Amino acid sequence: MSELLQNLQWRYAAKKMNPNKTVSQENLDFILEAIRLSASSSGLQPYEVFVVTNPEVRAQIVPHAWNQGQITDGSHLLVFAAWDNYTVERINHMFDLVNEQRGFENEGWENYRQMLLKTYPIRDAETNYQHAARQAYIGLGSALIAAAEKKIDSTPMEGFNPEKVDEILGLKERGLRSVILLPLGYRADQGDWLVNLKKVRRSTADFVTEVN
Amino acid sequence: MSELLQNLQWRYAAKKMNPNKTVSQENLDFILEAIRLSASSSGLQPYEVFVVTNPEVRAQIVPHAWNQGQITDGSHLLVFAAWDNYTVERINHMFDLVNEQRGFENEGWENYRQMLLKTYPIRDAETNYQHAARQAYIGLGSALIAAAEKKIDSTPMEGFNPEKVDEILGLKERGLRSVILLPLGYRADQGDWLVNLKKVRRSTADFVTEVN
Repeated sequence: MSELLQNLQWRYAAKKMNPNKTVSQENLDFILEAIRLSASSSGLQPYEVFVVTNPEVRAQIVPHAWNQGQITDGSHLLVFAAWDNYTVERINHMFDLVNEQRGFENEGWENYRQMLLKTYPIRDAETNYQHAARQAYIGLGSALIAAAEKKIDSTPMEGFNPEKVDEILGLKERGLRSVILLPLGYRADQGDWLVNLKKVRRSTADFVTEVN
Repeated sequence: MSELLQNLQWRYAAKKMNPNKTVSQENLDFILEAIRLSASSSGLQPYEVFVVTNPEVRAQIVPHAWNQGQITDGSHLLVFAAWDNYTVERINHMFDLVNEQRGFENEGWENYRQMLLKTYPIRDAETNYQHAARQAYIGLGSALIAAAEKKIDSTPMEGFNPEKVDEILGLKERGLRSVILLPLGYRADQGDWLVNLKKVRRSTADFVTEVN
């Protein structure tokens, strides 16, 4: 079996992490780079990643996330935070960056910018946030694969109070809303009910339909 | 640089695919397996993947997707289709499958089932669909990485009329809603304005915030 599929098989949402093992800076950077390079709609990258190591800040988050211990037992907590809205400034910032990096303006690309400027900022903020939040899940998909490649455990969490996490991290002032928590660390030797259980997925026959 | 990061750098949303090159069954299966093994909220896998090769069906979709030629120039069109709602049946089906595969019932897992049964089915269908759709994006993240590993091009598309695609593929009757189109194929030698342009991403400093 290919390494990628082996890594996907290996990974699971660790329920208990070892508080004495730390993800190295090199491996953390690798995971963050996989997220940063991930695709997003129109290339806007409408989210940011917070890397929380501060123990007090993580402890503050725990009660707002069903008291899940991985948040403090892991060595790093990633918080995916999506744009609360698509604004003219944010769209222009990304298109300007593209032009600057490529060293020239492309007519098709400029027309595309105008199309987004005409459609996104006038939509309601909630619709735009929902769209931005979806893009963060592409990055999450990359993060899970990158972590597994380094045999680092990762436990995606949607079960938390986003308003509280936004408050703790000061996200609202930055125009961001927390979407996913992702503790990174190493599975504990003991105390994880899930670690030895079989990964279960629907069969390919139940998951894939061919239209030939 | 690691192979994963190299593959993420290599990939881009091909704008013109070669209609004479076909993704092999082996590579297609690899990509589908990467999606199938991907994480999802509570392991529910609340989406399915349609693999459309039929040329007439793909041609029907094109006008509802901004006439993007990759849909027919690629050899396969993947359609990610999310559950239109979380129902008691769907939740039980997945929990029953887990028990069957693991060969026993786990008390914590059964309590978790009851919690989901009490909360998901009573929420409005749109909220549930939006949640399910997000999970498909984790699978999309895996698909993009798996395709790139095989040097297969993939172009994620959100710009299409989902009602029309649902109609063409008969998704509504199956309780599904189309979320993402992903043509798979090989970039054309000519005619792709994007192929030689630099991939641009925000700098790590603008994308990652450390909370130490």
